[in-house]
Amino acid sequence: MNTVLETCRRAAAAKQEIGTLGTQQKNAALLAIADALQANRERIKQANRQDIEAGRKNGLNEGLIDRLTLGDDRIDGVADGCRQVAALPDPVGEVTEMKVTPGGLKIGKKRVPMGVIGIIYESRPNVTVDAAALCFKAGSACVLRGGKEAFHSNLCLMQIMRDAVAACGLSPDILNLVEDTTHEGANVMMQANGLIDVLIPRGSARLIQAVVHTATVPVIETGVGNCHIYVDASADIDMALDILENAKCQRVSVCNAAESLLVHRDIAAAFLPKAKERLDQHSVIWHGCPETCAILGDSIIPATDEDYGTEYLDYEISCKVVDSTDDAIAHINRYNTGHSECIVTHDYFHAQRFLDAVDAAAVYVNASTRFTDGGEFGFGAEIGISTQKLHARGPMGLKELTSNKYIIYGEGQIR
Amino acid sequence: MNTVLETCRRAAAAKQEIGTLGTQQKNAALLAIADALQANRERIKQANRQDIEAGRKNGLNEGLIDRLTLGDDRIDGVADGCRQVAALPDPVGEVTEMKVTPGGLKIGKKRVPMGVIGIIYESRPNVTVDAAALCFKAGSACVLRGGKEAFHSNLCLMQIMRDAVAACGLSPDILNLVEDTTHEGANVMMQANGLIDVLIPRGSARLIQAVVHTATVPVIETGVGNCHIYVDASADIDMALDILENAKCQRVSVCNAAESLLVHRDIAAAFLPKAKERLDQHSVIWHGCPETCAILGDSIIPATDEDYGTEYLDYEISCKVVDSTDDAIAHINRYNTGHSECIVTHDYFHAQRFLDAVDAAAVYVNASTRFTDGGEFGFGAEIGISTQKLHARGPMGLKELTSNKYIIYGEGQIR
Repeated sequence: MNTVLETCRRAAAAKQEIGTLGTQQKNAALLAIADALQANRERIKQANRQDIEAGRKNGLNEGLIDRLTLGDDRIDGVADGCRQVAALPDPVGEVTEMKVTPGGLKIGKKRVPMGVIGIIYESRPNVTVDAAALCFKAGSACVLRGGKEAFHSNLCLMQIMRDAVAACGLSPDILNLVEDTTHEGANVMMQANGLIDVLIPRGSARLIQAVVHTATVPVIETGVGNCHIYVDASADIDMALDILENAKCQRVSVCNAAESLLVHRDIAAAFLPKAKERLDQHSVIWHGCPETCAILGDSIIPATDEDYGTEYLDYEISCKVVDSTDDAIAHINRYNTGHSECIVTHDYFHAQRFLDAVDAAAVYVNASTRFTDGGEFGFGAEIGISTQKLHARGPMGLKELTSNKYIIYGEGQIR
Repeated sequence: MNTVLETCRRAAAAKQEIGTLGTQQKNAALLAIADALQANRERIKQANRQDIEAGRKNGLNEGLIDRLTLGDDRIDGVADGCRQVAALPDPVGEVTEMKVTPGGLKIGKKRVPMGVIGIIYESRPNVTVDAAALCFKAGSACVLRGGKEAFHSNLCLMQIMRDAVAACGLSPDILNLVEDTTHEGANVMMQANGLIDVLIPRGSARLIQAVVHTATVPVIETGVGNCHIYVDASADIDMALDILENAKCQRVSVCNAAESLLVHRDIAAAFLPKAKERLDQHSVIWHGCPETCAILGDSIIPATDEDYGTEYLDYEISCKVVDSTDDAIAHINRYNTGHSECIVTHDYFHAQRFLDAVDAAAVYVNASTRFTDGGEFGFGAEIGISTQKLHARGPMGLKELTSNKYIIYGEGQIR
């Protein structure tokens, strides 16, 4: 078994090769990876069965077993994902803002690969392929560290991808999987300064916080979403009901799902009973402020301060009646995680104020928070959704996986 | 004395106010700060004298005493700096890449303030004003932590600035100085997650590494520069001599000064004796590879591996003869700090190869590395030079002190 540090060193040694590779060569390798994954589907399913059996023995629930399972559909899915990434425009090499200084230097900003991208994720083995393909197209070597429940699947997928890359005449060390799935192994990766240029944790709030607190390499925080729907006094009630239902219930386990409802006092009596009725169709549990409880009655659990800060990721919602748009904004800026926030309103000034003052990656007027997604935003694919302000904020596509450098053409200039 | 955490909390409470302030109000406050600094020059000089006397008692050398000193010229300089920042375009609020999705959502990327910017720096008290002015114009509250040698000066400058801001009807907590200058105090700042959005260390390599290793808040690494001049076989020897002399000797203590010379084998015998002669005018000490020593003789100290990795910041240089441009690139990518690198050449393909393959914030063809500077790059002012790949790379102006958010205008869209 390679140590984590050895794996990081191999990736760093391969970054120059992938970083200077042309678009056509990168795309050809991505298509070769896609073909190899489909050609080796029996081998993948066999490795996957090992993980599933181990998971059942260790008492994983069926939801987790499902996330772990690689059937033919999912194998075809990840292969098609590679083909889609091959079809995306190459972000690397674009030069922008080229200008000539008074002294005659030509200075431009060139988009360049990150170098080595580390990604730490949890159970789903398809992330191994998705993440590898995106890093590859973005011109970076990658060091992936999946969950130990998916270890055999990840190892098999990675071996197939490395072989495919090698068959294209490239170094297999452009793509790497950490074989040591202990916490200590993850910590080595988080502190591989000089080897890993950026580390992206994908998964639970706990994983992300562990990475933020342990890492000494640059990190992009992703994915925790305590998202709010604020129904302003002037809201169209039917629109607000549709947006609330969609944001809360269309898929409860995702980071852009709504977790909290804020309602202006003037519309609360008219809106809340209908909202309750609508969410009752999905058996949503309510945690309400005193006014909410007064309007909706005994079935509402009184909301605690902790409720307002909770990302339920389930059929559960917190609800608060507020006095104004500014009240709603203050509540959101206190409790949110900087992900996605929505106002439903007819009022132009309230819409503008909400867009200006809410501190989040994506701020919506009259649309569901569920749209915060690389695909929906037109990026083609995403590696995650950044909830920090440094480097990238919101859905991260290929462009967000790159850096830049200044290139300067001179004719002997000195200062 | 306020604790560091209290100071960070005050800054966080003030970020909404400065973040939504209009350009004219920000500029008016910056001009008021400039006037107040000049009106209070005697008070500043008095506080500064306390620091200078303490510094002399503690045995600070005259170079450090000079950096610490605030005479009338420097006070006028920082005041004028505020006026220049007021005159720069406001980076906040620009919306780019606005597009309409197939579903009719209008999605745009809006430039927004960071929130709270933390800056940890060393002896020079003028940084207190420069950094505060840049953060203010960029729409962020700031938490500054200067060196303890400049404590009285910093406190006095900050008090004058806070009073000026308050006199404009704004919260003085937009501008903050950490009063606790212990290491523990700095550590609190480095781990003020949720309060500080980005932390920028400015100063020695040791300070920056301490921040990188201790901080759990997002950090931008700045300023360490082991910069190379590579003289290719086809170089114009006179141009190479001018660039070498300028990059090495024009100001030795700065991060964009050259620290290492690489010379192609075919030009080494012709170039090196002239280079030695030129740098002898500045009494530069040479550390050379065996070939360099063979050409230049006994006065050259044999270079160690450590020399190639050293940022001398002094009249000292390491030198190595290489076989090719690719050799030079490999050497640079091994030893550099990702700051500024230069090739001197007549060869088109070598120039392009160097620009493509050297991994640094600024890569030059035929120009001195000394140009890596916010002013020279046309940014008007800079907060530092980023040597990391995340968020900003190279000189950081006002734009690099901002983040973005997506704003989405809908008409009831759901997924």
